[in-house]
Amino acid sequence: MIKNKKVNAAIIIIGNEILSGRTQDTNTGTIALWLNSIGVKVQEVRVIPDIEKTIIDTVNILRKANDYVFTTGGIGPTHDDITAESISKAFFLDYEIHKEAFKILEAYYKPGEFNKGRQKMVWMPKDAKLILNPTSGAPGFSVNNVFCLPGVPSILKSMLGGLKNMISGGKPIISYAINLRTVESEISKPLTFVQENNKEVEIGSYPFFRAGKVGVSIVLRSDNKSKIEVCNSQILEFVDQKKIEIIESS
Amino acid sequence: MIKNKKVNAAIIIIGNEILSGRTQDTNTGTIALWLNSIGVKVQEVRVIPDIEKTIIDTVNILRKANDYVFTTGGIGPTHDDITAESISKAFFLDYEIHKEAFKILEAYYKPGEFNKGRQKMVWMPKDAKLILNPTSGAPGFSVNNVFCLPGVPSILKSMLGGLKNMISGGKPIISYAINLRTVESEISKPLTFVQENNKEVEIGSYPFFRAGKVGVSIVLRSDNKSKIEVCNSQILEFVDQKKIEIIESS
Repeated sequence: MIKNKKVNAAIIIIGNEILSGRTQDTNTGTIALWLNSIGVKVQEVRVIPDIEKTIIDTVNILRKANDYVFTTGGIGPTHDDITAESISKAFFLDYEIHKEAFKILEAYYKPGEFNKGRQKMVWMPKDAKLILNPTSGAPGFSVNNVFCLPGVPSILKSMLGGLKNMISGGKPIISYAINLRTVESEISKPLTFVQENNKEVEIGSYPFFRAGKVGVSIVLRSDNKSKIEVCNSQILEFVDQKKIEIIESS
Repeated sequence: MIKNKKVNAAIIIIGNEILSGRTQDTNTGTIALWLNSIGVKVQEVRVIPDIEKTIIDTVNILRKANDYVFTTGGIGPTHDDITAESISKAFFLDYEIHKEAFKILEAYYKPGEFNKGRQKMVWMPKDAKLILNPTSGAPGFSVNNVFCLPGVPSILKSMLGGLKNMISGGKPIISYAINLRTVESEISKPLTFVQENNKEVEIGSYPFFRAGKVGVSIVLRSDNKSKIEVCNSQILEFVDQKKIEIIESS
């Protein structure tokens, strides 16, 4: 494990259903939180349509700019599932039946149920590595630093555990939140000052409305716990001076 | 209104909190559904961090490739709110106090409450057009084809109505869903055939799991109602032949 290196990733959400607003993407959050826990930071997410050229171009741009790329969606049995073929083209690899995947699905389905439609799911880029699927059989796959996962959130979630040994992360990214009963304009000046003094901690400020009351959530992120603590103590100092109520911190 | 032209848009979600997985983006869905209703199709969504160069580069790429670009987030009063200044730089415009926005917020707040922190929210690209905010006062703004909205979902939602006259859409995009009690592999072949015969209708196929039962949602999208009807009747034909149960359609 490379422990002192910053490791980053991009996520590509492939699917017209997200772009149309019909379906709410939740896979970004699932993948991002899991990646943070193994020391990988998500730098960018792109949601793109089921168009071959767009998939190829996006994969090729992002795989060069990031340590890892994760795609979701488009690996099922229907006509709009074009991720595996597009990835093959992105890497100039043959698109062919993956023997190991074929065996897995042949054993997964009852005799006679592994029909032509389902057999589409074992067509992959040549020599792709499989990502096992404990929920519904059909595996995902990876080629170099690109990992292709399904779009159905519960299935995707169940496959992340199997990915762990395929990813080398840095230090886990720690996140600490301080929720205050205040408004952003009240704390913007001292918070800017704290950010300037703590450049290695990413400080975010997010207003919220809960039960008719406004508040601000200050979120500190870093892979260095002691730097978060220093930053937190400087924030608590101005919070105390300004007599702002702390709702919770965690 | 241009009624026979395809009009497209990109959405840029600006915010580390989405990339970290801490916050679930819902603004994409809100904007996309609203744009569909006025005949604008979302082609791409990018989620990017609060980094000036990334914002400038992303805005400049997407504003040239799309009829409209919508940004969300980063227009509040704190140090991490850098959207307005970044947009100014993307367009080589001065970043300055917007007199009309100043007047609006001066009138909105009680005397003495329009402090330095809040005054940051009236700094905008020179000659930006305002997007009024009926919820919390501080306006969004547009420059050419780029529309900058806040990140807080309820505020963003309340501002879309005021945008309507600033956008010229095409024909509204109609969406029709047929939910079947089947699995994708059962219908993949005839559905591919229907897609090949109906190239102007975008056909999506989405498996679902509800109350322990599997099903498939077929979604037809087009700006032409009669083409959707033709496509639907061809689908109903094979659904009937295969004796597949229709759960609902709408």
